Amino acid sequence: MVNETQHSCSASSSSRCDGSSSSGSESSKDNSRCSTPVLDADRHERLREKMRRRQDAGDKWFSLEFFPPRTANAAVNLISRFDRMGAGGPLFIDVTWHPAGDPGSDKETSSMIIANTAVNYCGLETILHMTCCKQTKDDITGHLQKAKRLGLKNIMALRGDPAGEEWEEEADGFNHAVDLVKHIRNEFDDYFDICVAGYPKGHPEAESYEADLMHLKEKVFAGADFIITQLFFRPETFLKFMKDCQAIGITCPIIPGIFPIQGYHSLRQLVKLSKLEVPQEIKDVIEPIKDNDAAIRNYGVELAVSMCRELLDSGMVHGLHFYTLNREVATTEVLKRLGIWKEDPRRPLPWAVSAHPKRRVEDVRPIFWASRPKSYIYRTQEWDDFPNGRWGNSSSPAFGELKDYYLFYLKSKSPREELLKMWGEELTGEESVFEVFTCYITGEPNRNGYKVTCMPWNDDPLATETNLLKDQLEKVNRRGILTINSQPNINGKPSTDPIVGWGPSGGYVFQKAYLEFFTSSEIVTALLKVLKKYELRVNYHIVNVKGQNITNAPDLQPNAVTWGIFPGREIIQPTVVDPVSFLSWKDEAFALWIEQWAKLYEEESPSRMIIQYIHDNYYLVNLVDNDFPLENCLWQVVEDTFELLN
Amino acid sequence: MVNETQHSCSASSSSRCDGSSSSGSESSKDNSRCSTPVLDADRHERLREKMRRRQDAGDKWFSLEFFPPRTANAAVNLISRFDRMGAGGPLFIDVTWHPAGDPGSDKETSSMIIANTAVNYCGLETILHMTCCKQTKDDITGHLQKAKRLGLKNIMALRGDPAGEEWEEEADGFNHAVDLVKHIRNEFDDYFDICVAGYPKGHPEAESYEADLMHLKEKVFAGADFIITQLFFRPETFLKFMKDCQAIGITCPIIPGIFPIQGYHSLRQLVKLSKLEVPQEIKDVIEPIKDNDAAIRNYGVELAVSMCRELLDSGMVHGLHFYTLNREVATTEVLKRLGIWKEDPRRPLPWAVSAHPKRRVEDVRPIFWASRPKSYIYRTQEWDDFPNGRWGNSSSPAFGELKDYYLFYLKSKSPREELLKMWGEELTGEESVFEVFTCYITGEPNRNGYKVTCMPWNDDPLATETNLLKDQLEKVNRRGILTINSQPNINGKPSTDPIVGWGPSGGYVFQKAYLEFFTSSEIVTALLKVLKKYELRVNYHIVNVKGQNITNAPDLQPNAVTWGIFPGREIIQPTVVDPVSFLSWKDEAFALWIEQWAKLYEEESPSRMIIQYIHDNYYLVNLVDNDFPLENCLWQVVEDTFELLN
Repeated sequence: MVNETQHSCSASSSSRCDGSSSSGSESSKDNSRCSTPVLDADRHERLREKMRRRQDAGDKWFSLEFFPPRTANAAVNLISRFDRMGAGGPLFIDVTWHPAGDPGSDKETSSMIIANTAVNYCGLETILHMTCCKQTKDDITGHLQKAKRLGLKNIMALRGDPAGEEWEEEADGFNHAVDLVKHIRNEFDDYFDICVAGYPKGHPEAESYEADLMHLKEKVFAGADFIITQLFFRPETFLKFMKDCQAIGITCPIIPGIFPIQGYHSLRQLVKLSKLEVPQEIKDVIEPIKDNDAAIRNYGVELAVSMCRELLDSGMVHGLHFYTLNREVATTEVLKRLGIWKEDPRRPLPWAVSAHPKRRVEDVRPIFWASRPKSYIYRTQEWDDFPNGRWGNSSSPAFGELKDYYLFYLKSKSPREELLKMWGEELTGEESVFEVFTCYITGEPNRNGYKVTCMPWNDDPLATETNLLKDQLEKVNRRGILTINSQPNINGKPSTDPIVGWGPSGGYVFQKAYLEFFTSSEIVTALLKVLKKYELRVNYHIVNVKGQNITNAPDLQPNAVTWGIFPGREIIQPTVVDPVSFLSWKDEAFALWIEQWAKLYEEESPSRMIIQYIHDNYYLVNLVDNDFPLENCLWQVVEDTFELLN
Repeated sequence: MVNETQHSCSASSSSRCDGSSSSGSESSKDNSRCSTPVLDADRHERLREKMRRRQDAGDKWFSLEFFPPRTANAAVNLISRFDRMGAGGPLFIDVTWHPAGDPGSDKETSSMIIANTAVNYCGLETILHMTCCKQTKDDITGHLQKAKRLGLKNIMALRGDPAGEEWEEEADGFNHAVDLVKHIRNEFDDYFDICVAGYPKGHPEAESYEADLMHLKEKVFAGADFIITQLFFRPETFLKFMKDCQAIGITCPIIPGIFPIQGYHSLRQLVKLSKLEVPQEIKDVIEPIKDNDAAIRNYGVELAVSMCRELLDSGMVHGLHFYTLNREVATTEVLKRLGIWKEDPRRPLPWAVSAHPKRRVEDVRPIFWASRPKSYIYRTQEWDDFPNGRWGNSSSPAFGELKDYYLFYLKSKSPREELLKMWGEELTGEESVFEVFTCYITGEPNRNGYKVTCMPWNDDPLATETNLLKDQLEKVNRRGILTINSQPNINGKPSTDPIVGWGPSGGYVFQKAYLEFFTSSEIVTALLKVLKKYELRVNYHIVNVKGQNITNAPDLQPNAVTWGIFPGREIIQPTVVDPVSFLSWKDEAFALWIEQWAKLYEEESPSRMIIQYIHDNYYLVNLVDNDFPLENCLWQVVEDTFELLN
């Protein structure tokens, strides 16, 4: 196969030699050293390499298909679905191309922008669908260039559906998916991994099943890397198709498209579009329960599980592709029952990595954005280099401004009304703000009976790790130390620890205790007196909205607060407290008071003025306890401060 | 003073602000981030900045003057004196310029090469003297360019002594030190720190004491950074001189030159050269004991100590410069009695750093050269970048060949006859080699009654740290595991630990256990079987002279084996086991068998053939136990191996 030889250089090919082998030092010297330690092969391999590695390791995988949303609100929901379903460990997701929906535009609902968000902000390996009919070569090249610029690395090359009922060939245009495959390879060489569609029952417009197989072979030989199939209803349909493909020399991966039946109407619509016939035995079950959604979904899950099991047991199938219809429950259920949903996915780093190729070496970030990783990615998107090994080596220290807090992938998942219920329809003073912070920490409902599940600085409920500090945090928030970020100290826990672990197994992770909070100038004055006693044990940075900045950090150096030691690797230190970045974070952290909270209220209203007062007068403080093997002294620091005040 | 304003930008100027200060965020943003964490200010500051910092901190210091040796053997001895006296923590050393001795040449006895060795291989801040009379501008520029290229950063600008009895001015040449100062500033801008000589009694050729002071002022205003004085015999001589200097506006540091009297003849000679008069009270003591060297030295030490105390107590003196006459005992004694000899100097890193400016960011090295740091520096001297933070980031992975094992700063301190006594006049088999290794470890005399104080891979007695492993090492060497490098595992000892500590105080240091040895292929075969059991806990690299290479290291990645965590800083990982460098080290390690040991014996002699056999057939093995918090398992690995063999 043409593209097999083309792709034979694999980054992950092992260079070790075994006992009896005799590769001389010459050949070993020829191996140029990796310029970056490979902590996580997944971040460095192409999609086709990942597939091959999983297959070689006998490691079953799944992928998820989504279509672009119709509204901005739906986009916000889809992105949080990406985050939730991404946690189950899909090998990739793909985003369909809707020719009618301005798919290559910058709209928040376009295929291009949704795929961009998935890659960059959700860190998901993503395939962008692209159709070629009814478009000029220049348009298509433009879309591909844009996709490349945004960090997309994989294209599903499709013809597209006919505009009318019948297909009409265009003289100069692209008439077949194979034309798009060739175009991508001509114009972009080997940059993209290309996926093409396979039809286990033959394409409905093909002259015959055999003729369609030959079309597929043509697409593969033109440079496609793997095949995802149209949905089908019986495992034997797929297995026959696969054998037929192999018989004519198609050797690339063929991934079965799985469609868990989720409802009567969606099934009918899909069948109509795909011109497939639903087998009688399925119809017989569905027709009688067609008005019972739950029953149909249960049946759909059963059916999908049993079909997937048969496919996997055949030994011919290593990955399963799910048509999710943008829904979560059925697909997740199938995956969990198959045992391929990762209940506790290993984190390569303590923070959510981005899948943009230029960020693949990135392994250090300031701790400040721990709960706002998408904002961090947004504000550093123009960087050419990313910190790797050491923060101090970053050559791009300038953070972009975060002015548009309402970008759909940055904004809160909760609408205004919900936020008001959580954070108070009416504030009566600074104490009512303390209460909101306290309720967020404790998980207890506020005085109006609503749970506070998010805050301006954190759109998610409290992290499991923060839960370790819950009692202490509650106590200090009640008294006006308004915490927005914290971590406990960790002295060498296994890297597989379910709460604080990250990175490859067999390692040890460490943390210095960290506490970040807003507080009044009165408390800051007392705190500074207390901190003198702790000398260099506690590093602090204290800043107000005007930029008055008080610190005992030496020479603006970053302080590593999370690091890991692993077998056979260099040290990884993924989070630092960096004094310079803190001043950029400060702008964002203070602005969130206004943008997310104050603006919920009428101008000039007392509630708004309370938030404005805090914004104008409070300080943002961060504290690091450098003595990580000892008991965290930061609580003592805070307690001493309160004592001094009394 | 001209050069005061010129030099006002200090790298170490603190950017912190105190409680009440109000430096806004704007000014903080203007501080460009340091591209490299400053672990040790000493490595980043210029000599004049170090002086200023010590003075500000009230930290007394000393410096040492040496002259270039006359023979190659004397050069070897001088370099080990540098290493020994460097351990006491001089702020700098200086090397005099001997116009007659081809001082700018590449000879191993030239001033230039001795200073080069001090900077690069001994890691000492070094001032190279340079005289200007009887030389063309081009010659002088050439010397300065060469000095700069070699990494020298400080010049002592001198006129030089007259060729005949009387001084004759030259029309186009340099006639005064001030001409040289101006020339350096003209041609090299602010690159060099410049020192000039001061004469507490006035220069013998000066018209008057006052006229000489004005010459000195001229030199300082032309761009000199500090002054070192000619020797003197009474503290009041210096203190008066200093006050007189200050009175005419000389404000740069003035360092008193201290000459501990070490013998009758050297005193007479020096007095003759410097045209100084020895005070009667000193003559009265010395004359009666002039044939008793020890008595004179004791008196000299007493005298120097009391004078230095008086100088330091005056509050005007912060550093003392010692004319050592290339001798160790008297100066060291004076310094110890003054309490400014550092008995336990803090190591900035676990290995000896080089003082070449291009290496100042260097903070990672492969562990293999731990006992041969000069060879490592030599083989990497052509690198443009040095690993900083991460070994994987080094852009200069190619090691230079080490062909000339007899470079004076690389060769053994012991002559051939001594080496033969230590390593055996005649070897009777591999076991007699095992015995040599064992005696080196135990410190017991060999069968002929000689202690083995060095080995081809280690020119010094066993390191204190290795002593921790002595019993285990003895056992395995007896049985043919010929260890050349090892370290124990360390799980978070204070950075101030006297044996394994390094870096700033308040930190914690860590190590993975490491063991490196030569051994027979029979043992390697058993070892490999045993290692299977340990899986990824133990990383190994096993290689023979032909380059057959067996490893379980993933993807040629380096393994960090020493690291430290410090308050307010990024993680430092100064030593790694790097699979690529290991193959360069292997060439050196195997060659040392032949170059240093086999060649002691006649060609074709049985002793030489035994060493040649080991060289040709043994393997070089390194083992890392990744599980640093547990008990070191490498001894168990070795024991299991021996058990399997039985």
